[in-house]
Amino acid sequence: MKTAILTVGTEILFGQIVNTNAAFLSQELQNMGYDVMYHYSVGDNPGRLKELINFAFHDCDLILTTGGLGPTQDDLTKEVIAEAMGDVIVENEECMKALLDNYKKAGRTMTPNNLKQGYMPSRARVLPNDAGTAPGFALEKDGKLIISMPGPPREMKRMFELQVKPILESMQDSVIFYRIIRTFGLGESSMETVLLPLIDGQTDPTIATYAKEGECSLRVASKRATKEEAVAAVDRMIEDVNQLIGEYIYSYDDEDLVDVVGKLLLEKHITISCAESCTGGLFAAALTDIPGISEVFERGIVTYSNRAKMEELGVKAETLDKFGAVSPETACEMASGLAEKTGSDLCISVTGIAGPGGGTAEKPVGLAYIGIAYKGQVKAVKSQYRNVSRKWNRHYALLGMLNQVYQLIK
Amino acid sequence: MKTAILTVGTEILFGQIVNTNAAFLSQELQNMGYDVMYHYSVGDNPGRLKELINFAFHDCDLILTTGGLGPTQDDLTKEVIAEAMGDVIVENEECMKALLDNYKKAGRTMTPNNLKQGYMPSRARVLPNDAGTAPGFALEKDGKLIISMPGPPREMKRMFELQVKPILESMQDSVIFYRIIRTFGLGESSMETVLLPLIDGQTDPTIATYAKEGECSLRVASKRATKEEAVAAVDRMIEDVNQLIGEYIYSYDDEDLVDVVGKLLLEKHITISCAESCTGGLFAAALTDIPGISEVFERGIVTYSNRAKMEELGVKAETLDKFGAVSPETACEMASGLAEKTGSDLCISVTGIAGPGGGTAEKPVGLAYIGIAYKGQVKAVKSQYRNVSRKWNRHYALLGMLNQVYQLIK
Repeated sequence: MKTAILTVGTEILFGQIVNTNAAFLSQELQNMGYDVMYHYSVGDNPGRLKELINFAFHDCDLILTTGGLGPTQDDLTKEVIAEAMGDVIVENEECMKALLDNYKKAGRTMTPNNLKQGYMPSRARVLPNDAGTAPGFALEKDGKLIISMPGPPREMKRMFELQVKPILESMQDSVIFYRIIRTFGLGESSMETVLLPLIDGQTDPTIATYAKEGECSLRVASKRATKEEAVAAVDRMIEDVNQLIGEYIYSYDDEDLVDVVGKLLLEKHITISCAESCTGGLFAAALTDIPGISEVFERGIVTYSNRAKMEELGVKAETLDKFGAVSPETACEMASGLAEKTGSDLCISVTGIAGPGGGTAEKPVGLAYIGIAYKGQVKAVKSQYRNVSRKWNRHYALLGMLNQVYQLIK
Repeated sequence: MKTAILTVGTEILFGQIVNTNAAFLSQELQNMGYDVMYHYSVGDNPGRLKELINFAFHDCDLILTTGGLGPTQDDLTKEVIAEAMGDVIVENEECMKALLDNYKKAGRTMTPNNLKQGYMPSRARVLPNDAGTAPGFALEKDGKLIISMPGPPREMKRMFELQVKPILESMQDSVIFYRIIRTFGLGESSMETVLLPLIDGQTDPTIATYAKEGECSLRVASKRATKEEAVAAVDRMIEDVNQLIGEYIYSYDDEDLVDVVGKLLLEKHITISCAESCTGGLFAAALTDIPGISEVFERGIVTYSNRAKMEELGVKAETLDKFGAVSPETACEMASGLAEKTGSDLCISVTGIAGPGGGTAEKPVGLAYIGIAYKGQVKAVKSQYRNVSRKWNRHYALLGMLNQVYQLIK
């Protein structure tokens, strides 16, 4: 079904916020087999909004809107849509009750303009808002459908998941199921080459690769009559994918590598500490973003100077002199020194050249060595990123560290 | 002038990328006094693209487009715009020469489809691309103007800055100049209240406040006949702003706090080390994102466990027992212990409750104590964020640390 996404709000036209709602809805619709033909954004202006709705409907049968459902004078989406769909706004018992209950429960006094949220187009199907006060609605006319959701992303996403998705699913005569597989260590073109026998000539399930921030993801999707059939088809294909690139896969469920690693550390209760040079605290910061990680994360040391490497981790002056701070030898001494000091089950270190300066022909920007001390063994692994920027070199070294931990404890 | 922004590309409609181009152009246009009325996004489809251009022009006089200028079959923006503006595509000597030179210089072989980039609408004003191969163009008809730029944000921004901005400026009979003032420590509504005498009834310069990730920014803008007059008016107003909230301001030039702090540390050559608990390495990671910071940043220690706080920083067991890990006493001992260990000029520490769990009535989630050891003095400062999420609590504690450093060394 041809679909348009219409986001309403002056803050978008002012460039104060980036339109993430449109991207989120596009992905979701795409995944459900809807064809998104247009994104439109317009301010809180009734004339232009109405014109845009009419324009969109001459080509599309479904419009999803976000924004403009709030209680202020500006918020006119509901009124304009009612008019465009030949309907009128009336008090809605269900909405009014929910609204009054909400305010009562929160013990807040309602200002008169909030009453607006108790009104709806007379033929609308109300979509309750689990995460805020403004309800959404669906309104149909002559086979054309508008579904209207609030603008704040948290409210919109929750309403989409609970209310809108089921409606859209019920309108399709087939079901699309997909999984996003996340990998590390294999570039997009290498992955495509390896998977070519599966991708080529394949109509269902389909396989698509996406490069993303130093990683590569894979979307395996199937469109079948029932969900069971689609799931089975996807899972059969994933078995074949596994045969070819299984060693690079860390999630079949679109999880981030740091979350996968954090979960494993907590499940297996493996204590961890880290010593960072080029990443400067990124590893510790990423891991400690996970609630409850304090159970296994003991400490992190950012040894940015050579002196800190020696004092904190017992790296030998000779090692630094002979091999340099960025070397497998230094990475190993960092990790084993940290293990000795902390007694953590797993100690990981990194030393590299983040750039933009400091690179040489022998040790170019983007080079890093990752040291790991685990179960009495110490080793170093080389990581080399194509030098794009300091930011990405640091990020790639972080992913390399996480991947080393993952490979050891999975 | 009424303006529409039109982004072309299937990857936007698929939700694979978020439309940051539209937000960037909106901000820039807004700052130059153009009224952005619409954002449109459409795939690489000639029919829909042409229809959208016609629709946009019935209300707007200027359309800025991005995307669809590349060498592939898909890239049809140029051809469609030419047709919509009653023009034809012809070989363009300037473009063809630049194209051939580019390939020659890079030593790359040109595929035939690349030749497309040597063609232009016959009446177009060519906009050279400093950061890529696809040139942009401006094309006018009957007082309506389309300016077309490539899609990759880096190329688009550079072309906008060098080529498009001067054109747009020349079309205005007045000049808008503005400064973005960045502050920390004052909420948006408090700031508005304090600045009310300046905001109220002020038509030029205008003052607008923006809340952003725990901070609050201020935009002071003036529209005058010449740039000199506008600059003078803005700077006069900023003097008045300074009288009222000067102590909270850390940049008059829209710089990030971490960059301001990093620059000051490098300029004054003040060495720094940090000891982090709740921020878990964010401070070290933020500071080490600055190229060259290794000159002053000595080390960071993420003391996530009590044991690490004692072993690494010499925090006393009695202190942890009596006052708890999240207390001014612990924060002070962390900072002074670090100072003793490292000898860095400035040592900063933080200990807090990031959440979502671990809060009590007395020590709620979002509470943090920042310790500072500087010039022989040690003190602790309390920071309390309204608890939104672990992420924001950690971010706010980071800003608090940066602000403490800034206040001491500015």
